[in-house]
Amino acid sequence: MTGRFITFEGIEGAGKTTQIHILAESLRGRGKSVCVVREPGGTPVGDRLREVLLKDTVLAGLVLPVTEFFLFCACRSELVRSVISPALKRGKVVLCDRFTDSTLAYQGYGRGLDLDCLRESIDFSTGGLVPDATIYLDIPIEVSLRRGRGDEFSDAFFRRVEAGFRKLAGAEPKRIRVVDGQDSVESVAAKVLKNLETVILKSPRILGEKPATN
Amino acid sequence: MTGRFITFEGIEGAGKTTQIHILAESLRGRGKSVCVVREPGGTPVGDRLREVLLKDTVLAGLVLPVTEFFLFCACRSELVRSVISPALKRGKVVLCDRFTDSTLAYQGYGRGLDLDCLRESIDFSTGGLVPDATIYLDIPIEVSLRRGRGDEFSDAFFRRVEAGFRKLAGAEPKRIRVVDGQDSVESVAAKVLKNLETVILKSPRILGEKPATN
Repeated sequence: MTGRFITFEGIEGAGKTTQIHILAESLRGRGKSVCVVREPGGTPVGDRLREVLLKDTVLAGLVLPVTEFFLFCACRSELVRSVISPALKRGKVVLCDRFTDSTLAYQGYGRGLDLDCLRESIDFSTGGLVPDATIYLDIPIEVSLRRGRGDEFSDAFFRRVEAGFRKLAGAEPKRIRVVDGQDSVESVAAKVLKNLETVILKSPRILGEKPATN
Repeated sequence: MTGRFITFEGIEGAGKTTQIHILAESLRGRGKSVCVVREPGGTPVGDRLREVLLKDTVLAGLVLPVTEFFLFCACRSELVRSVISPALKRGKVVLCDRFTDSTLAYQGYGRGLDLDCLRESIDFSTGGLVPDATIYLDIPIEVSLRRGRGDEFSDAFFRRVEAGFRKLAGAEPKRIRVVDGQDSVESVAAKVLKNLETVILKSPRILGEKPATN
């Protein structure tokens, strides 16, 4: 793979979508070919499942945590093989809004599913694809709630998710870069770019490389 | 668990549905409380996914084997926890039309997905639930095709599935009872019942036990 795979993680309202948009524009301005994706969704099957996972109020209360987990695996296996891997092979920078760390944080730490079991199925769903770097936009849940997000969760669940993200970041400091998401949008964007410079812009695998025309 | 969990496996047209129906009636006639389920489906989520997996002609060609596998896991995790396990706890005999062996035969042997990886995720999806006995209705694919079934598969795929089922049966002769599905319906039904007598009717865990009222 000649591209770069960057994921953004964080609780609701951390600023993932905003920062991905800014980073994408910034990279495009520097001549990079960028592909932005989000989970769940991004494929015909994924979009159908997204409805089941996020939008279907009738089913919402009926889906068990382990079922929810496997639906995310289904979405992810499709997204990785149909979109992310092909884009990486064409030398693109792929920015993904949530990936495996979200599953570990929400379904693992949050819902209490066994982390080792989750990791086994996750590895199978991704075919072993690991992000070159992950930006964890760190905000306390109070900030999330103040930004009008995350109020669909119980306080206890949301706190377990937040703590889970921090544990994941602590365990893989090289891959997961923690950026304080409470600063101004511009300040966060500058820090994000700085954190990724080595990974995206200075890499010999990318520098001077012209993305293939499809 | 005080009930008994029996699964039926076999390629298309082997007679699973017919035999399950006959066995259920026979067991009910002997005073057993019987619960019949099928995969995929049997729960609100499962039924929605069944459409995606089996009925959606638009999506049919777009779902990758690994995605298909995780959708089956999602259906199964829901079915096991919402229907099968509660029924077993109430002392019922649960008859299931396809279960984990089908996944190994179709997605593993048929589609070529790694069997060990499949088994890890399968175990997580079932929570470790293994059938007390499995009836494998054995017919050659020529009989399946003659019965007007299985023509949606390529010959090579269908042969791998058939061979896979036989390998699975050979590896677990105690759990998986091979019954020749080419005989008359009555003859097969008699063999099925004979194979399950010890498991269902003579078991001290079942005999003389009155199913709890819910």
